[in-house]
This record gives sequence, structure tokens and C-alpha cells, in this order.
Amino acid sequence: MMARFIALLTDFGEKDFFVPSLKAVIAAINPEARTIDIAHEVPSFDIRAAGFILFSCCGLFPKGTVFLAVVDPGVASRRAILLAETEKHFFIAPDNGLLTLPLKNRAVKSVRKITQRSFWLTAETTTFEGRDKMAPVAAWLTLGIPPEEFGPEVRTYHRLKMKEPVRSGGGIDGEILYQDKFGNLMTNIPLSMFQSLRPSRMKPRLILRLGKMRIHRLIRSYAEAKDSRPFFLVNSQGLIEIAVREGSAAVRLGAKPGDPVTLRWER
Amino acid sequence: MMARFIALLTDFGEKDFFVPSLKAVIAAINPEARTIDIAHEVPSFDIRAAGFILFSCCGLFPKGTVFLAVVDPGVASRRAILLAETEKHFFIAPDNGLLTLPLKNRAVKSVRKITQRSFWLTAETTTFEGRDKMAPVAAWLTLGIPPEEFGPEVRTYHRLKMKEPVRSGGGIDGEILYQDKFGNLMTNIPLSMFQSLRPSRMKPRLILRLGKMRIHRLIRSYAEAKDSRPFFLVNSQGLIEIAVREGSAAVRLGAKPGDPVTLRWER
Amino acid sequence: MMARFIALLTDFGEKDFFVPSLKAVIAAINPEARTIDIAHEVPSFDIRAAGFILFSCCGLFPKGTVFLAVVDPGVASRRAILLAETEKHFFIAPDNGLLTLPLKNRAVKSVRKITQRSFWLTAETTTFEGRDKMAPVAAWLTLGIPPEEFGPEVRTYHRLKMKEPVRSGGGIDGEILYQDKFGNLMTNIPLSMFQSLRPSRMKPRLILRLGKMRIHRLIRSYAEAKDSRPFFLVNSQGLIEIAVREGSAAVRLGAKPGDPVTLRWER
Repeated sequence: MMARFIALLTDFGEKDFFVPSLKAVIAAINPEARTIDIAHEVPSFDIRAAGFILFSCCGLFPKGTVFLAVVDPGVASRRAILLAETEKHFFIAPDNGLLTLPLKNRAVKSVRKITQRSFWLTAETTTFEGRDKMAPVAAWLTLGIPPEEFGPEVRTYHRLKMKEPVRSGGGIDGEILYQDKFGNLMTNIPLSMFQSLRPSRMKPRLILRLGKMRIHRLIRSYAEAKDSRPFFLVNSQGLIEIAVREGSAAVRLGAKPGDPVTLRWER
Repeated sequence: MMARFIALLTDFGEKDFFVPSLKAVIAAINPEARTIDIAHEVPSFDIRAAGFILFSCCGLFPKGTVFLAVVDPGVASRRAILLAETEKHFFIAPDNGLLTLPLKNRAVKSVRKITQRSFWLTAETTTFEGRDKMAPVAAWLTLGIPPEEFGPEVRTYHRLKMKEPVRSGGGIDGEILYQDKFGNLMTNIPLSMFQSLRPSRMKPRLILRLGKMRIHRLIRSYAEAKDSRPFFLVNSQGLIEIAVREGSAAVRLGAKPGDPVTLRWER
Repeated sequence: MMARFIALLTDFGEKDFFVPSLKAVIAAINPEARTIDIAHEVPSFDIRAAGFILFSCCGLFPKGTVFLAVVDPGVASRRAILLAETEKHFFIAPDNGLLTLPLKNRAVKSVRKITQRSFWLTAETTTFEGRDKMAPVAAWLTLGIPPEEFGPEVRTYHRLKMKEPVRSGGGIDGEILYQDKFGNLMTNIPLSMFQSLRPSRMKPRLILRLGKMRIHRLIRSYAEAKDSRPFFLVNSQGLIEIAVREGSAAVRLGAKPGDPVTLRWER
């Protein structure tokens, strides 16, 4: 499995020297490696948002891609740096839960702690581990160094508690997972679960509740919404999403990630 | 005509998983294709701004470049997705007028409707057509698949009504087309038209009017402006542009795209 | 010395056609050249910030990298465009002081004025010299054209007055050089100078003063800070930096680049 692409996800922003430092280190070790930016405007220290973004696009990348994710409130603390290998990809990230969602439902071959200092830029304590430890390991992986060279397997690693959608009273209780740039609100309710809900003669209307709002328009695409009332749809990730045509559902509904939603057939 | 570069223009922003999803799809189909970001911070759904940006730089790209432009208020509606071929380039965009300005004054060899589902990631309805239909077609084009494989030519396609500058009373009536990051205001008045204006003994002063403002300094470069009064110049696109030295003309003059301007010799 | 990478630093922002214009010009001249974005969100016309960013990451790039830095309040004025060559790299920038910090303490082989018009896109006056003069020269350099082809050496060039940290009364007087995205405040006091400060029985406490604030926590990493009080550390550039755990030191302390700081052992 020969890797060539390194996909970068950070909360470094794009105004400083942090992101180009990662790319420079990679280019100096393997000039043939090709970096792809996932995003660098993740809200500072927001591990959940970073995990959702990575989860939402990692499956599309070519076999062998190395994901380098640096959202790290605990930089240079004693938390480990992880290297995970799945059937298709490598993931490098701090052991802070960022990989919870990306690794969920994927066949994980190994999860290691990166300890082999000979691959780092410096063996000393550093306040910029993305540059000094993680980027070099990503670059060496694309040169074919096998994962076991970088450190030992770990038995366990930090996983975020993710609230799973649950069936309740003939409906589904879930929550908002993510708000995108347009203000669309993505929930944690998957298509498959949604499809198992059944109407009845007594309860013919499918209602999504968000706080005090009741939304009862399920449509197939953003463009089907002919007016500006909120609606919901199955989005491109296969998740129930709340949206407003050419507007922000988050602003309109005053909602944000973490807010509970319910979906059920009602009278 | 073998294409290698794919240039991306969207209103997706840079904080989500949308742009990297396009790049991942492309890399998975043709790892040798090279993507170049034009811009992703186009104001949401602003087809005119997107068209102007694409128009302003597309001519500089190497022969064979594929432009993938996704600013699409009607995503997943019944509007078609277009593939246009010019002498030098390919353009993929929704049929919503975005290509009006980029294709203007260019020799267009064909404009097609992308209908051949075998090139898409999915044949089903999708809310993310940039990822599922457009990016794959861009990638397959760089592998040498000829345009006719993707769908039939169309007789007509959506064109935005663009207000053309007109001669009037010895001057030119035009409008502001675009406001850049610095607050410079680009008009639709081209150098050639401007050069045809002639002073006279009775009307020796060239005046640009914008609302109630009269601007009477034509200079050759931003740096020639020695103070902070507004001026105008012929910009790098060959268009008349209104600017303020190290400041925002848009803020200073309270002006924006769509506002009318006139240019004439006066007493 | 065969260059392949071109690293771009501008204040162009990412919403317009400026940055892709540079990349298109480069791709058209040398399709094999690989561009890396350093940053494009440098505050408009902020030469000092641009110089600090370039200084902070340029040393990490591979041998032969061409740095193309366009932050240029005087675009198209009579200031020259410089091409500097160091042992490892090339730098192209306006002669406005931007290169002061990047070239400091580096072995500079030559500094030239770019005058050879045959390499430009146009010989005429232009308001977009980044596109029309600087990007082409960067691309031609990666094709192996030697620096002397582009113009004559200059005896002198514009250098910014940089305030150096000075020893005073057993301590160090310095200033804040840069504020990063997280609000961390980087000073101009280097580790080596800091290490020469010695405590005494009478003065056992190391105090960093910033305006009326006294900060007396020196720690090794951001994560060592267990509460939200400001602290200082030696950062990844080897400079004294003031920070707040998961917060903005700039906002908390009301401080900004240019503000004086002192560091001394006190009672």
C-alpha cells in the first residue's frame, strides 16, 4: 500500500505560518508527496467539528492517503500522538478523541502510539508537534515506511462520547451534529434508521421537532423548496439535515450543534 | 488536447468538507490531475461574482485546463449541468448563467448537457452534485475522455442579462461589476471604449460620476495617488476601476456592484 | 540548484481572482512547478507581518524553493522588484522591506533588481505586477534560468528598522512582533538571550511585564497551563511568547504588535 496523498485538517487558520510549515516539512522529506487541504478554519480546539469534517470526506480519498489532523488543545502535554491504519488509509492525530467518528464503522487494522523519535524533526519538547512530529511521520509514511516502525500498538485510545440516535415512542430522538457554512444543520439520524419509521392512519404526518419548532416538510433537494420555510432532507452524507432555501437554518431556528431533535409520525 | 489541471471555483467556503470532497473524488479517479483553487469564498449563491472571477483569470490557465465552477442555488433541481469547450479550455458549471461572462468573446466549440450517468458517482438523486456528478466528469476529462461522451450538445443555455456600457451624450454610461477584497470597484467600461472618448476646448476635464460623487483623477497606478482622495485607472483586466490609495473605495464612496457610473469630458 | 516549489505569500485574500492568476501564470510557463500557499490573508499592506510569516517558515522548505511575496502598498510605483538568492532559496518581493527579516542571519549570495522585460507577461505599465512580472520570473527560475539573467545586482535595498531586544538593568527590553490566529503574542526576545538572564538570592522571580501586567509563569507547553491566567514560554520559533490556555492573550491583555515588553528577575 503505497501512499502519495497527505490530507491536512487543522484549526490553524490560514493567516499564519502554521499550515505552510507542515507542507514545507513534508516537501522537504518527500517532494513527491501531494498535500490536499481538507480545512484549516475548524473552530479553535473543536475536536467534534474536526472529527465530523474528517468523517464526512475521508472515504472519498484514494487508497493510501495519509490524513494528518491537528486540532489539539493539549499540544505538548502527555497525551499520545496516534497513527491508525484502516483497510484503505492512515490517520495521524492527537489521542484526544478526534478520530472517534472517522474510525467508527471502519475496519481498523492497528492503532499505534508514535514514539520513534528518529523520524521527528527534534527529540526535544516542542510546542509545535504538528510540524515537528506529525508532519514528518506523514511524509515518511508516503515513502513506504511501514506503520510498525513508528511505535507500538495501543490497547485503547481516547474516544468521544457520541450521543447515538435512539428509537423512542415510535420515533427517533437525535441531535444536531454539525452546522455548515450555509447554516444547514446536520443531525446524527441516518437514512437507514429514518426509513424504518412508518406512518399510520392515526399518524399520517412526519414531523421533525427542534426546540419549539415543528418542521413538516421532507423534500428531496434544496431546490424543491419553493419558499423560505425550513425543511428537512436526506443529505449527501446520508443524514437527516435541516435547511432553508438560500438562507441559514441555524440563524432562522436559533439552533446549533448539540441541540436535540426528534422525528416522528404524528397526527 | 490533453488536460491536466482542474481549477475549482465554488461558494462552499473553506471550513467544511465540501471542497476537499471534490478534490478527493478527482484524486481517486485521476491521481495525476492537479487541482488549483480559484476561490471558494464567493458570496453564497452569487452567480455574477463567480462569473466575473472566472472571466478575470481563466484566460491565463494552460491549454487543456478544466474549470469546475459550483455556485448553484438550484442544486439538484432540473437545471442541467453544462460542459462547454472553447479553443483552449473546458468549463463545467450549472446551467444558471455562471458561464455568461467567461464564454463571452471566446470561440466556443460546443456546449453540452452532462447526461451520461456512467461517469457519475451515483445515478440517484443527490444533494451534492458538485461531488457526485461534476467532479467526476472533470477528472475523466483530464484522462482524455472526449466531451461528446458526456452528453449531447444543447442549442441554448441560460445567459445572464449583462448591462453593457453604452455611449450617451458624448460619454459612457456603465456600472460597477465587482468589488474586490481591497474595496476597489471594477466597472464594465473597457479601455477601448474609454480611449474613444475625446476632450474638447469646451470640455477639458474627464469626470467619472458615481452617485453624487465626481471623481476627476485618472492615474496610471495605485502608487501614483499621493493622497487619500478617490481616483480611477485602467486596471489589470483592462477595465476602468475606482480606487483609494491603501483604502476601500467601496466604503469611502458607499458604492457596490450594480451601481451606475458615467464617464465624460466636462467643463 | 534546480527549483521545483514556488511558495506564495500575499495580502490578496482568497475571495478574488488574484491568487489563482499567479498560479495560472506559473502553470502556463512551467506545468511541473508546484505551488504551496504560505498565506494570503496577511493584513492588507502589512509588510512587517508578511516578513515575520515568511521568516517563520522559509527555513523549512526544500532547497531550491522560490518564495514569491507580494505585499505591496507601492505596486507599480518606481520601487524595484527584488530577486534575492541565499544558499538554499530564492526570494522575489517588492523592494519595500518585506525581505528584511527573512534574509536576516542568512548567507545572501546576491540581491538583484528584476529588469529583464523579456521574462514578463507585458513590457507595459501594469497595475498587477505580481501576475505580470513576479510570477513569470518565479516560474522561469524553476525551469533553471540563472538569477543573473533577470537583472543586475543592487548595492543596497530597503530594510525595515527592526527594534532589537536590548539588555537593560539586568533584564531585557523587547517588543511584541506578531499576533497569531489564536491570539498568542510572539516577542522579539530569543531563547539564547533569555537564557543568559540569571536569578539571584535577592531577585528570585522571573517577571515578564507588558504594560501594567506582570506575568510570572514560565512554562514549557500550552498544556501545562492548568488555569486561564496568562503565561509565557519559548515557542516553536525559539522566541518568548505570551499565551493563555485555549484563549487569546491579545484580547485578555489588550496587547498588539509593537507594544513593549520587559523580562527580568525581580524580588
